[in-house]
Amino acid sequence: MGKKKKKKKKRKYLIGIDLGGTKILAAVIDREGEILGTAKSKTPVADGAEAVMDRMAKTAKEAIDEAGVKRKKARGVGIGAPGPLDPKTGIVHYAPNLHWNDVHLADGIAKRLDLPVSVHNDVDAGTYGEFRIGAAKGAEDVIGIFPGTGIGGGIILNGRLRTGFRGSAGEVGHMVIHADGPLQPGGNRGSAEAIASRTAITRDIQAAIESGRESIIPKLMEDRVDRGKSNRITSGVLADALEAEDEVVTEVLSRTSYYLGLLAANMVNALDPEVIVFGGGLIEACEKWLMPRICTVAYQYYINKRNADQIKIVTAKLGDYAGVLGAAMLARDRLYD
Amino acid sequence: MGKKKKKKKKRKYLIGIDLGGTKILAAVIDREGEILGTAKSKTPVADGAEAVMDRMAKTAKEAIDEAGVKRKKARGVGIGAPGPLDPKTGIVHYAPNLHWNDVHLADGIAKRLDLPVSVHNDVDAGTYGEFRIGAAKGAEDVIGIFPGTGIGGGIILNGRLRTGFRGSAGEVGHMVIHADGPLQPGGNRGSAEAIASRTAITRDIQAAIESGRESIIPKLMEDRVDRGKSNRITSGVLADALEAEDEVVTEVLSRTSYYLGLLAANMVNALDPEVIVFGGGLIEACEKWLMPRICTVAYQYYINKRNADQIKIVTAKLGDYAGVLGAAMLARDRLYD
Repeated sequence: MGKKKKKKKKRKYLIGIDLGGTKILAAVIDREGEILGTAKSKTPVADGAEAVMDRMAKTAKEAIDEAGVKRKKARGVGIGAPGPLDPKTGIVHYAPNLHWNDVHLADGIAKRLDLPVSVHNDVDAGTYGEFRIGAAKGAEDVIGIFPGTGIGGGIILNGRLRTGFRGSAGEVGHMVIHADGPLQPGGNRGSAEAIASRTAITRDIQAAIESGRESIIPKLMEDRVDRGKSNRITSGVLADALEAEDEVVTEVLSRTSYYLGLLAANMVNALDPEVIVFGGGLIEACEKWLMPRICTVAYQYYINKRNADQIKIVTAKLGDYAGVLGAAMLARDRLYD
Repeated sequence: MGKKKKKKKKRKYLIGIDLGGTKILAAVIDREGEILGTAKSKTPVADGAEAVMDRMAKTAKEAIDEAGVKRKKARGVGIGAPGPLDPKTGIVHYAPNLHWNDVHLADGIAKRLDLPVSVHNDVDAGTYGEFRIGAAKGAEDVIGIFPGTGIGGGIILNGRLRTGFRGSAGEVGHMVIHADGPLQPGGNRGSAEAIASRTAITRDIQAAIESGRESIIPKLMEDRVDRGKSNRITSGVLADALEAEDEVVTEVLSRTSYYLGLLAANMVNALDPEVIVFGGGLIEACEKWLMPRICTVAYQYYINKRNADQIKIVTAKLGDYAGVLGAAMLARDRLYD
C-alpha cells in the first residue's frame, strides 16, 4: 500500500474545467487520460466573472484533493467554455448565459492556480474528449455534432482540433441546410440549429399543439409540473412521448433526424472524416430512435458511396464529462506533444 | 548565354498534367513553381483509357521539350483528374466524361514516363495551385469553390490539402444548402450544385423564357449559332446579358450569387479559413458583378463577425492553368517537404 501511494505521488497530472451556465465541473487526469478525481459546483453567474473564476479555481482544488494528489504535481489546466472565445488569447468574447463580455479567462485562472491554462470552446473540448478517450478513440478525423439548446460542433482533422483562423471553427450548427427555412433568433435562417435543435423541436411541437393536434405532451408536462419540475420539454419528455408513439413528437423528431443526417452528410461530403460523433442530452435520451434514422439519411446524401460503410456515425460515450476530459486532454497534448 | 543554358540544365523540375474531358494540359515547373514550358492536346476520349494515357505522356514530353530541359532531370509528375478517385492508389474510380471506370492512372503514367506520379482531384489541384502560387498565396487555410457544369471544391488546412479518409474530401458543391430545393440528376436535392452551378443557371433561365418572360438570351444565342458556335448558354453569354441588364439573367444570377455567398459562409462557420477562392469560367466572366454580391451575402451569414474583415474572399488568378500548376506543386511538395 505504501508503495502504491508513493507511485501516486510521483504522477504528474492535468486539470480539466468545464464552465457551464449552471454548473462547473472539474476533473484531474493523469497523462494517460485516467480520471483521478472530480468535483462539481454551481456557477455563481449573478456574482460576476471574478466570482465565477474564484469558484472555478476552488472546484479545481476540490478535484485535486479528491484525487489525493499533490498540488505542485499539477502541470496545466484546460478549460472548456462557452464562446465565441479566442483559444490563442484565452479571452471569452461573449457568453450570454454567463453575462460575460471579453473576460480574460485564461489569465484569470492562471493567476489563481499558478499554472499554464488553455481555453477552448466547450463543444470543441467535448469532441476532443470523445476523440481521445471516448466514442471516436483511435480515429484521426472526427466531427462532433451536439444538438441541445443550439447545435454545437467540433472538428478534429489529422488528430488535431481545428480551431480556425480566428479561433471560431466548428460552428456546424450555424451552417445553413435549408435556405428559406425557419429563422433562428441571433442565428442564421435555415441553419441546422434553426431546424433541428431542441429549441426548434419545442417550437414545432408547440405549434402543432396550438394548431389543435392531439399529443401526449400537455399531459406529460402537467405530470412534470405536479412533481415540482420545470415546464420545459426536456429530452426525457421527448423520449417518453416517442415511447408512447405520440404522433406529433414522432413527426417532429423524424424531421429532426432527417436534418441531422443531412448535416452529417454535408460534413462527410466536405471533409470525408472517419467518424461523426453525435452527443448531448437529446441524443442520449432518444438514441435508439434517432441514431438509425440519422445514419440512413446521411448515407443517402453521401456523394461518394464507395467505402461509405467505413464512415462511422456513433453516439458519444463520455456524457457530461466529455467537455472536462477533453479540456484536460487538450492541455495535456499542448504540454506533452 | 552559354552560362545561362548550363544553369537551366542543372535544374530539377516537376511535371503537371491536367486531364479534362476535352483537353489535356501539361506544364513543367521548377522547384520554386516557375513555369518553364507548357503543352496542350485534345483528349482522345473515344479511343479509350490507354490512348488517353499515351496522349498524356506525349503532351508531358512536349512540355519538357518546350521547356528545353533534360528529360532525366524530371523528378515527378502530378496529375489533376476528374473523380471520384483515390489519391492513395492513383486509381480513377469513375469519370463519366472520360467513360472511365477504375483506371489505374498513376501506374499508367508512371510506366510511360518512368517517374513517380501523384494523382489528385482536378479541383483539389486547382485550389492547391491558387494556394501555392495564385490568389491565396501565403495563406495557411484556403477553400476553393469553382462553379461550372457542377461546383467543384478544394480544402487546404494548415497548409495541407485535405484529401480525406476515403480520398473524397472537398465536395463542397454537393453540400445541401436548400433542402427541398431543386433536384440534381446524379447529385443531391438542394445541393449548391443543384442551385448555383451553370447547369442550374441554364435550367432556370430556360424555364423563365419558356414561361413567357422576355429576355435577350434567345437573341444572343441566335447570334452565336449564326457565328457557328454552340447553342450553349456560356459564361460569356451570361456576361453579355448582364451587361445588357437583362431582367431574367440578372434575377437568376442574383440568386446564384446569394447561394454561393451562403455556401462560402457555411465553410467559414465550419472551418474558419483565411481565404476563400472563387474560380472557373463563370466567375471569370462575371467577376465584377458576382463577387461583391457573394461577399455581401457571405458576411451576413458569418456567425462570428469578429475580425470577419480578415477573411478574404478572392477571385482565382491562374485561370486554366490552376489545375496543372497545382498538380505539379502537389508532386513537388510530396517529394521535397
